[in-house]
Amino acid sequence: MVGPEIERLIALLARLPGLGPRSARRAALALVERKDSLLDPLVRALAQVAHTVKTCPICGNFDSCEPCAICADPTRDESQLCVVADVGSLWAMERTGAFKGRYHVLGGLLSALDGIGPDDLAIESLRARAASGRFSEIILALPATVEAQTTAHFVQDRLAATGIRLSALAQGVPVGGELDYLDDGTLSAALKARRTLS
Amino acid sequence: MVGPEIERLIALLARLPGLGPRSARRAALALVERKDSLLDPLVRALAQVAHTVKTCPICGNFDSCEPCAICADPTRDESQLCVVADVGSLWAMERTGAFKGRYHVLGGLLSALDGIGPDDLAIESLRARAASGRFSEIILALPATVEAQTTAHFVQDRLAATGIRLSALAQGVPVGGELDYLDDGTLSAALKARRTLS
Ligand SMILES: [Zn+2]
Ligand SMILES: [Zn+2]
Repeated sequence: MVGPEIERLIALLARLPGLGPRSARRAALALVERKDSLLDPLVRALAQVAHTVKTCPICGNFDSCEPCAICADPTRDESQLCVVADVGSLWAMERTGAFKGRYHVLGGLLSALDGIGPDDLAIESLRARAASGRFSEIILALPATVEAQTTAHFVQDRLAATGIRLSALAQGVPVGGELDYLDDGTLSAALKARRTLS
Repeated sequence: MVGPEIERLIALLARLPGLGPRSARRAALALVERKDSLLDPLVRALAQVAHTVKTCPICGNFDSCEPCAICADPTRDESQLCVVADVGSLWAMERTGAFKGRYHVLGGLLSALDGIGPDDLAIESLRARAASGRFSEIILALPATVEAQTTAHFVQDRLAATGIRLSALAQGVPVGGELDYLDDGTLSAALKARRTLS
C-alpha cells in the first residue's frame, strides 16, 4: 500500500547494519516527513561520499584524499605500522587516540570457510612495506578469533625474512570480540600491553 | 580522524530513528564498503523519493501520485473515512488489511505542551470532507494517549453539526501505545470492535 519508491527505499534501508524491516520503515517515514532537514541533506551527503571517498592506495583506509589524511600526515610516527583487518578496526583504533603511527588494512581475515586466501588480502603489499625499512615495528591489531590467529601466523611467516619486530594487541581483547564493539579504554590498554611476537 | 564527508554522513544517519551514533558509524562503513550494491542504489532511491513523493492534497498520505493511490483507488469503500494522526499510523492501518475505506491524516495531535493547536492540524479539511455527505462513518484511529483523547473530543465537537456517525478504535490499543508499534492482529481486533462515539 506504500508506493514503489518508498518500498524500494525501505528495502535498501533494511540492509543497513542495525536497521531491521520495522526500523527501516520508521526511518523512511522520518525521511519523507523531514524532507528539507533530513532527506535532502542525506542525499547530498551520500552522493558526496559516493563521489569523493576512495580506498587509500597506501594503507586501504577510506578517505576523499589520495593518499588518505593519515598517510599524508607528516606529524604521525613513521616507525610504527598497525595492521588491521578492516577500516572499521582502523576507525576504532583512531578513536582511542592511543596510536600515532601508520596503518595497513588487510581487507579481511584468512578463512577457509569463507574461501578467503592470502591473495584476497593485502599481505604482499604489507610485506613490501615491512621490507622498505621505514618501519621499526609492526603491530597486529586483530580481533581475538580463530581466523585472526591464522592470519597473524601467516603474516608472521611472510614477514620473517624482513627481520622486523612484530607485536600484537594484548589479550585484553575479549575472545570472539570484534574491535569495533570494544570500549576505547579496553582497546587502549590492549595496545599499551601489546606483546612481542618476533 | 574520519574524513569530513564520512563524518557528515554519520551525523545525518545518527538522526534516523533506530540508529544511534555507533550504529550510524557502522552503517556509514557498510555503505562505503558496498558502494555498488548499497551506497549507489540508496542515493538513487533517496533522490527518487525526494523528487517524486508528495503529500496527498486530499488525505495527507505520502505518495508519488496526486492524489495518492488510496484516494485514487475506485475499488475502495467510499463510505468510511479513517482519521489518523500521522502517515505512520496510516501505514500501520494498511498493513492490517482490515480497513478498505479512505483516510484523513491530521498531521499530529492537539498538545498544549508542544503548542499544537487546531489550526496546526487538518481538522477544517476533515470537517469539510465530513460535511460533503460522501461518508456515512468516520472512524477515529488514534493512539490511547491524553493528546489523542483531547483531539478526539475536539474533532467530535467540530463534526457534531454534520450529524455524521463517529466511531473510535476499541480499547484494544494499549494505553500510551503508538499505533505503529502494535502488532497487526491487535490493531485489526481494535478496528472490528470499534465503539460508536456519536
Ligand atoms: Zn592511507
Ligand atoms: Zn490520498
